[in-house]
Amino acid sequence: MDLARIGGRWSRRGLISGGVAAAGGLAAGVGVAGLSGPVASEALAAARAGRRYPFRGQHQAGIVTPVQDRLFFAAFDVEAGQRRADVVRLFRTWTTAAERMTQGLPATENGAYGGRFDQAPDDTGEAIGLPPSGLTLTFGFGPSFFSKDGDDRFGLARRRPELLRPLPPFQGDELERRRSGGDICVQACADDPQVALHAIRMLARLGDEVVRLRWSQSGFGRTSRTDRSQPTPRNLFGFKDGTANIGSDDAAALKRHVWVARDDDPDARWLAGGSYLVARRTSMDIEGWDHQSLLEQEAQVGRTKKTGAPLSGGTEMSAPQFEDAASSSPLIPRNSHLRLMHPDFHGGARMLRRGYSFADGNDVRGKLDAGLFFLAYVRNPDTHFIPLQRAMARHDAMGQWLTVRGSALFAIAPGVGDGEFIAQALLS
Amino acid sequence: MDLARIGGRWSRRGLISGGVAAAGGLAAGVGVAGLSGPVASEALAAARAGRRYPFRGQHQAGIVTPVQDRLFFAAFDVEAGQRRADVVRLFRTWTTAAERMTQGLPATENGAYGGRFDQAPDDTGEAIGLPPSGLTLTFGFGPSFFSKDGDDRFGLARRRPELLRPLPPFQGDELERRRSGGDICVQACADDPQVALHAIRMLARLGDEVVRLRWSQSGFGRTSRTDRSQPTPRNLFGFKDGTANIGSDDAAALKRHVWVARDDDPDARWLAGGSYLVARRTSMDIEGWDHQSLLEQEAQVGRTKKTGAPLSGGTEMSAPQFEDAASSSPLIPRNSHLRLMHPDFHGGARMLRRGYSFADGNDVRGKLDAGLFFLAYVRNPDTHFIPLQRAMARHDAMGQWLTVRGSALFAIAPGVGDGEFIAQALLS
Repeated sequence: MDLARIGGRWSRRGLISGGVAAAGGLAAGVGVAGLSGPVASEALAAARAGRRYPFRGQHQAGIVTPVQDRLFFAAFDVEAGQRRADVVRLFRTWTTAAERMTQGLPATENGAYGGRFDQAPDDTGEAIGLPPSGLTLTFGFGPSFFSKDGDDRFGLARRRPELLRPLPPFQGDELERRRSGGDICVQACADDPQVALHAIRMLARLGDEVVRLRWSQSGFGRTSRTDRSQPTPRNLFGFKDGTANIGSDDAAALKRHVWVARDDDPDARWLAGGSYLVARRTSMDIEGWDHQSLLEQEAQVGRTKKTGAPLSGGTEMSAPQFEDAASSSPLIPRNSHLRLMHPDFHGGARMLRRGYSFADGNDVRGKLDAGLFFLAYVRNPDTHFIPLQRAMARHDAMGQWLTVRGSALFAIAPGVGDGEFIAQALLS
Repeated sequence: MDLARIGGRWSRRGLISGGVAAAGGLAAGVGVAGLSGPVASEALAAARAGRRYPFRGQHQAGIVTPVQDRLFFAAFDVEAGQRRADVVRLFRTWTTAAERMTQGLPATENGAYGGRFDQAPDDTGEAIGLPPSGLTLTFGFGPSFFSKDGDDRFGLARRRPELLRPLPPFQGDELERRRSGGDICVQACADDPQVALHAIRMLARLGDEVVRLRWSQSGFGRTSRTDRSQPTPRNLFGFKDGTANIGSDDAAALKRHVWVARDDDPDARWLAGGSYLVARRTSMDIEGWDHQSLLEQEAQVGRTKKTGAPLSGGTEMSAPQFEDAASSSPLIPRNSHLRLMHPDFHGGARMLRRGYSFADGNDVRGKLDAGLFFLAYVRNPDTHFIPLQRAMARHDAMGQWLTVRGSALFAIAPGVGDGEFIAQALLS
């Protein structure tokens, strides 16, 4: 690397362009900050536990909902031999249970101990006494739900959205079947992991004999925010993540980038008001990352570690300036994550990211199995995800530390109207 | 099962004794309760985020400390070829880092971005901006630390506490090497999982080349409480767990059952003020459990699901009455967990339990890999743990749903005094 030392400090501009530039704009990235902000966090925590989101509405909850602290994500397969009527019955049952649980009630009226002693209790009980904790449950369908091995299993093949196809292979992916695909997905988010787990466990139990859990993933420490009043969280690389995420208050951006419109797909009008969800279990080589210099880390991200500001200067929310106007020399490395993913280079495409960190033990060499469970909601995966992922897989300097081992695409049903069950427009 | 139906209700006494008894005492276990108590929980959550516990003291923090919400537990092995001086150096480094992190500071003074740009940052950064979240770090030593394959690796073999031996095999155990044993353990507890993970990650990083992570386990939804003002949490069987746990305010019980006294082991006086920690990763067949009737579940636990009261009646905190005084017939099943583990049948032995639930994905049949990461602090494993575990393995009706796949015993160092490093009395 070509480093220019200026004023006793290593210059990022030197790293990037090989030239010499003033280091003034970089000083903001240095120094010791007060590391605890307990007051704001406490107020936030207090408000969270009692949060309760409506289950019904134009869109499903759990997409623009302010990102909760914890995730339990499940992908189910419909068992062989089931018919559409069985699936409809399941979704009717799931609708009742899901609505109840999001409101802090047990999954059914009898609850954990209101039924007969000689029968299995309806509810498994571990969420008794816990507040709703902002629980949301969000349902979607994978390509295999519509047809599997060429079989139009539920007579719904012609309603498959055209864009709902298995994602293409990306360079560097090391996909594992047991972490990929699935007929149906349920994203459970809550501020208490026991509440999120309870919801998935109850849905699995109610779905017994119709569906089987294919894979599941727990997550914590959300890696983006949808509510601009939420502080930008840090991912396991130690950087702020999700700075430029679509905010829940940005109706124009949501309409353009997230919600499927009525005329987007004439064969799948049932999806209007829904979205597409990309789920990718991305292992991070955090030990390798940690051995890099701050300079290298920041060059790969394109932002400073301290404030999250673009390397071109300013604050976290400043727009990045990729090149020096006069010299056309780059101010932010061309292979940085910030530049490669930026909407300016993808026809303006943006995603609503909603991912979580995970840490699932370690391997025999002592390396943590940790990373990012990437979740992104987009109106069109062909324009809003696949080209970005291709660019990242090919060029992104950060990519050397990332390995995707699980991958799935789902069509997320629109909101559930009064008196309706989940995905009624698709299933009936 | 012999069930006696009384007054339209199944009688537990009927189940237990085969006889007929009044069902009055059972009515307390039935009915629908208000399921959300958000007000109390919110106040609790608010208080939590800013909590900060002193690192130094007579005993290590993280034992009687009010149980935090989240766990990240790590077992390390010392790499071959390391000497005692290397271990001492590591523990000096760990002491500084651990004390700083528990106080909400980065692991070292330079933090995540205060060092040189051309060097790897000292701190990995993902906890920047997060409050201390009640982080505690608790250190201990496994039998293999003192000698491995007959080798007195650090000249400390003669200081091995006599009671620090590998636990004997228990009926039904299906131990996996990659989840068992370890030279050194670190228990990280915090109310934010990212704070707990960050601490373990930093210790692993600071220990690079001296120790290697052997296994790790994350946990949530504590399954006991040490502070009597904490509500008794529910485990993944949906039952209140830890009702009879030793409270942090019960100095007499702590002295008798938890803290190693100066004269307990003349060869290991360094352990005075410390304890023994039993760690057991216990998989729970929650799907099988859930298919049982409420009657069967409560008979196996020995308590009601709703209130946690013993089946002999009263409230959660009532002392169980195991037999009817007049008839000597059992009021609580003889093979219930409550009876088999009760101090009355183990010479008064009690543990300080501090376990957590876990949910680590699912197997190919769709069953969740979920359960209890059992953690218990005892003064003497030979009297306070092994006989109880034997009784449970042989007779406990609940045991059919439990499989232990990971197991370890550690000697937990006493508290760290001013100017001392962790386990200084052992290592120097």
